[in-house]
Amino acid sequence: MPDQKAFQVQFQPIGKRIVASPDVSLFEAARESGLDLASACGGEGNCGQCRVMVLAGQTTPPNLDEEFILSELELQQGERLACCTFARSDLTIQVPRESLITGQRLQIGSNLREIAPDPMIHAYPVTMTPPTLEDIRPDFTRLMDALAEAHGLRGLVADTAVLRTLPAIFRDNRWQVTAFVRGSEVVGVVAGEKRPLGFAVDLGTTKIAAYLVDLATGEDLASAGAPNPQIGYGEDVISRLNHVSRNPDGGRVLANKVHETLNELLDELVYQTEVSFEQVVDACIVGNTAMTHLLLQLPVRQLATAPYVAAVGTSVTVPAAELGLTMAPGAHVYIPPCIGGFVGADHVAMILACDLDEGNTTSLGVDIGTNTEIAIRKPGLSVLTSASCASGPAFEGAHISDGMRAASGAIEKVRITETGVELTTIDDAPAVGLCGSGIVDATAELYRSGLINHRGRFDKENGRVGNGRFGAEFCLVPAAQSGSSRDVLITQKDVNEIQLAKGAIHAGLQILLEATGTPPEAVEEVIIAGAFGSFLNVQSAIAMGLFPELPRAQYRQVGNAAVIGAKWMLISRHARQRAEKIAQHTTYNELTTYPKFGRKFALGMLFPE
Amino acid sequence: MPDQKAFQVQFQPIGKRIVASPDVSLFEAARESGLDLASACGGEGNCGQCRVMVLAGQTTPPNLDEEFILSELELQQGERLACCTFARSDLTIQVPRESLITGQRLQIGSNLREIAPDPMIHAYPVTMTPPTLEDIRPDFTRLMDALAEAHGLRGLVADTAVLRTLPAIFRDNRWQVTAFVRGSEVVGVVAGEKRPLGFAVDLGTTKIAAYLVDLATGEDLASAGAPNPQIGYGEDVISRLNHVSRNPDGGRVLANKVHETLNELLDELVYQTEVSFEQVVDACIVGNTAMTHLLLQLPVRQLATAPYVAAVGTSVTVPAAELGLTMAPGAHVYIPPCIGGFVGADHVAMILACDLDEGNTTSLGVDIGTNTEIAIRKPGLSVLTSASCASGPAFEGAHISDGMRAASGAIEKVRITETGVELTTIDDAPAVGLCGSGIVDATAELYRSGLINHRGRFDKENGRVGNGRFGAEFCLVPAAQSGSSRDVLITQKDVNEIQLAKGAIHAGLQILLEATGTPPEAVEEVIIAGAFGSFLNVQSAIAMGLFPELPRAQYRQVGNAAVIGAKWMLISRHARQRAEKIAQHTTYNELTTYPKFGRKFALGMLFPE
Repeated sequence: MPDQKAFQVQFQPIGKRIVASPDVSLFEAARESGLDLASACGGEGNCGQCRVMVLAGQTTPPNLDEEFILSELELQQGERLACCTFARSDLTIQVPRESLITGQRLQIGSNLREIAPDPMIHAYPVTMTPPTLEDIRPDFTRLMDALAEAHGLRGLVADTAVLRTLPAIFRDNRWQVTAFVRGSEVVGVVAGEKRPLGFAVDLGTTKIAAYLVDLATGEDLASAGAPNPQIGYGEDVISRLNHVSRNPDGGRVLANKVHETLNELLDELVYQTEVSFEQVVDACIVGNTAMTHLLLQLPVRQLATAPYVAAVGTSVTVPAAELGLTMAPGAHVYIPPCIGGFVGADHVAMILACDLDEGNTTSLGVDIGTNTEIAIRKPGLSVLTSASCASGPAFEGAHISDGMRAASGAIEKVRITETGVELTTIDDAPAVGLCGSGIVDATAELYRSGLINHRGRFDKENGRVGNGRFGAEFCLVPAAQSGSSRDVLITQKDVNEIQLAKGAIHAGLQILLEATGTPPEAVEEVIIAGAFGSFLNVQSAIAMGLFPELPRAQYRQVGNAAVIGAKWMLISRHARQRAEKIAQHTTYNELTTYPKFGRKFALGMLFPE
Repeated sequence: MPDQKAFQVQFQPIGKRIVASPDVSLFEAARESGLDLASACGGEGNCGQCRVMVLAGQTTPPNLDEEFILSELELQQGERLACCTFARSDLTIQVPRESLITGQRLQIGSNLREIAPDPMIHAYPVTMTPPTLEDIRPDFTRLMDALAEAHGLRGLVADTAVLRTLPAIFRDNRWQVTAFVRGSEVVGVVAGEKRPLGFAVDLGTTKIAAYLVDLATGEDLASAGAPNPQIGYGEDVISRLNHVSRNPDGGRVLANKVHETLNELLDELVYQTEVSFEQVVDACIVGNTAMTHLLLQLPVRQLATAPYVAAVGTSVTVPAAELGLTMAPGAHVYIPPCIGGFVGADHVAMILACDLDEGNTTSLGVDIGTNTEIAIRKPGLSVLTSASCASGPAFEGAHISDGMRAASGAIEKVRITETGVELTTIDDAPAVGLCGSGIVDATAELYRSGLINHRGRFDKENGRVGNGRFGAEFCLVPAAQSGSSRDVLITQKDVNEIQLAKGAIHAGLQILLEATGTPPEAVEEVIIAGAFGSFLNVQSAIAMGLFPELPRAQYRQVGNAAVIGAKWMLISRHARQRAEKIAQHTTYNELTTYPKFGRKFALGMLFPE
């Protein structure tokens, strides 16, 4: 039995000192102290990304996960997985560069157009006269009278949460305040004169991206990102839904996890911009249908089993307080409508931000993530058609032996030459792993160089192909030159994972084209959305068969369109109306029940001949 | 230190057995087990109403409160106050009849007119087709489509609390449900076909009265009452406001106390009528401004100090869940508007139920309680005028040595003859104390018989006047004939308390008549509202100077008009509109700043010569 004494843990070379209780892993303890170690599995002992070196002190012995992932030599040298290691004395820990999440590239910028703000909420500054024995109007009546006089507003109401704040704010600020009004509702009152802000969020299965926006000007004030904390309950959507269906308290726990992270992001944005929480008066959160159901604690059992029915498909407006968000006391959060059980509000947001619901070209929109959503617009069709494919997290670096997030030292470009490998890393730092774009580049190059065949098998006869723990492998960076003092490899298992992902996406694209009677040569535009897609080398993606060879198509990489769509809905009532229409007028194609889905999937796994 | 063992306590003669922990008073333990002992002070050791006799077993010794209230003989005989006594072994306790709250007369009936229902919420039964792989409409969309088809309803929304219930209710009940709809909002969905019910409450400073009502027919299904549990934090409004202003957690604690009691009343009503909580889809709660502020946890500091400003005076509609009420998941509670800091929604409800806002006579409405509110309607005046007087709880039996609630054994009528006293008790049970109407009758009779003079002093020369612990006193029932084996007395202190109460009411009536230029002979009607007022002997009330001699006036006793007003607003949108108008068009007169208030008060304390 560990005793409940807490230990001092010093992390080198950053010099951070934390306190770790013996029943909390070093990974958890570090995270609680604000030190984020890399992880794809969320601290489950699966991904091997949170490697650390124990330089001094006693810990629990290595467990089976560590013995599987770490080599005997690495274990002998004191290398450990932080998520499997518990302090048994004060410790000194070396954190290799690749285990530290530093300066992760924020991939929420975009090259989409700007729209004119038309927000739900406006700010109205007023000055009131204080009460006297001759004028005992209640505080809220006094505010309403002032708003009527100064701004012509009438018939206002407010939540009790807002009403509770009035007496102190009025009396502490000489009766000079700004009221934030949404329709006929006062959602918050703040001291002095302040502008109204909004919180736009893309709640991804793997990552969460957020913006703080000035509602009146549409200006982005700050952005922030974080891993989805539900990852510990399953990397994929179905595992999380099953967890909730099986555990009576699961829905509450998973919802709270996300609420906490959203609040931390909001915290960070508010801190960055030096504004007050009470100014944040509106929010829009998009995500796939499972993520929004989990966020709202809606029942998911019927979503996890055939025929996969959502509890709610319409937009939902919910008090920010219900999601535990520290915002203006009367603020609400808008969750846009979804299209089907597996095509969510994030897809609606993507369609919106890419203007796929407007315009006259034959266009494909592809949002690559753990699930990849595809929409097609075709002139003459009154509706959009969309589909969702389970592409898995390979392109986000998970399930890839040296996969990593797009952080410093991640390989993002690869060229395999006759004599060696040329590569580019983020920040030009020594290579420690591959991010999504590097994975695609590397795979395309392996195929181009004949190191793998069109079925994805390594050519074991080739002298450049090695043989490692997971079978055939190719070394991109030898240990001596890497930033981690270990080889950076692509293994046969990695190639297989990538093939599964590209097979799913390829099948989805093909089926959608067939279902709408669109010959490939008719496609004029392919919009690639998503964080991964924005850094992708499109030529490599075509070369490896991730995207089909579309003769006339222009490829356009637009970044995280979902969060841009969320921002549009945040700042514009018109955008919300468009979103409602998109949801109503988009038909969903269930791929897995489509004839010959299996065959199309298998063909998509092959490399183009 | 008491150990944490729990003891068995048997109450005689009712034979109820409860378990009492040693750190909970017998009063609390009994209440928790559903056995209500009489109390005016809420278990604070002040009122002496929760007397019990310890027949067997060990308890804590008598404390100072008990030594003050109980005589030495009583203590020697084992008499105790249940609220001051803690078990130290298994106990057998004798509960005297007057300490048991049995069959308390429910005073919420009325002889006011009925109104036609026009409720906010209607019930719509629907049958849906279950989802298939070809029809994967989300559950809420399916419900909306069914409601549109069967009832022509469109554009509906629902709270997440409602949305969360849909998947299970639909699948467990063969897709046959009833939706309760308020405007465009689905507030609840229940299995099968059910009628919508509502909860009407008068939240008094001392008592809470509640009804369960059929919203479609307006029929009363059940009624229930309970003491206001905040009494432990002060009998009067100002003590409670001060408690909250001084204690950081006070607002939450006092609100929770009332929320719990409201929920218990709702529980009782639902149990009585064998309906389900989910059918209770609307509520209306009235109370004075302090009570509604405490209910809603609104700040009260500014309400407790000059110029006594309410935080909110408009009507408030708040989710039932925010008040902890177990009702339909999307149900809301309507709190009507108030008129001033000390003229609340209960007064608006009284004006409404008495139709004082309609009609053409010169009428006074008087609602007697811990605070007494008075309204006057006068033809030719476009507004109603009202005032509030701090009459105290004397007429509710508190602060009166043998005062009690209108329960079995309470003296309700008194006639003092040359030779003795003739009296009537509730249930014709042996007399144990005086309820409000008995107090008025007894006082009037003491004055008529010359036992007290017009200043309210006992005639100590009169042989029928005794001399007790509180000075002069008159024995209404000697111990040998009483139901409590103690004398039932009226003391000099009691008469003084009654004089203070009548002084306040008298001054309020006079000032309101003066302020509206109404000569007393112009008054055509006096409507007496309130539980106390409904059993009052009006002749006695005039004789003792509680009501002025109004030559032409007809007196009408209408019972608890506030709860009837609450019921009207519950079942009728038109009644809510009238309430909003009443609040806007009633002017409030602050009595204490009125010229010569003190003199009028002092004169009102005298008995009519």
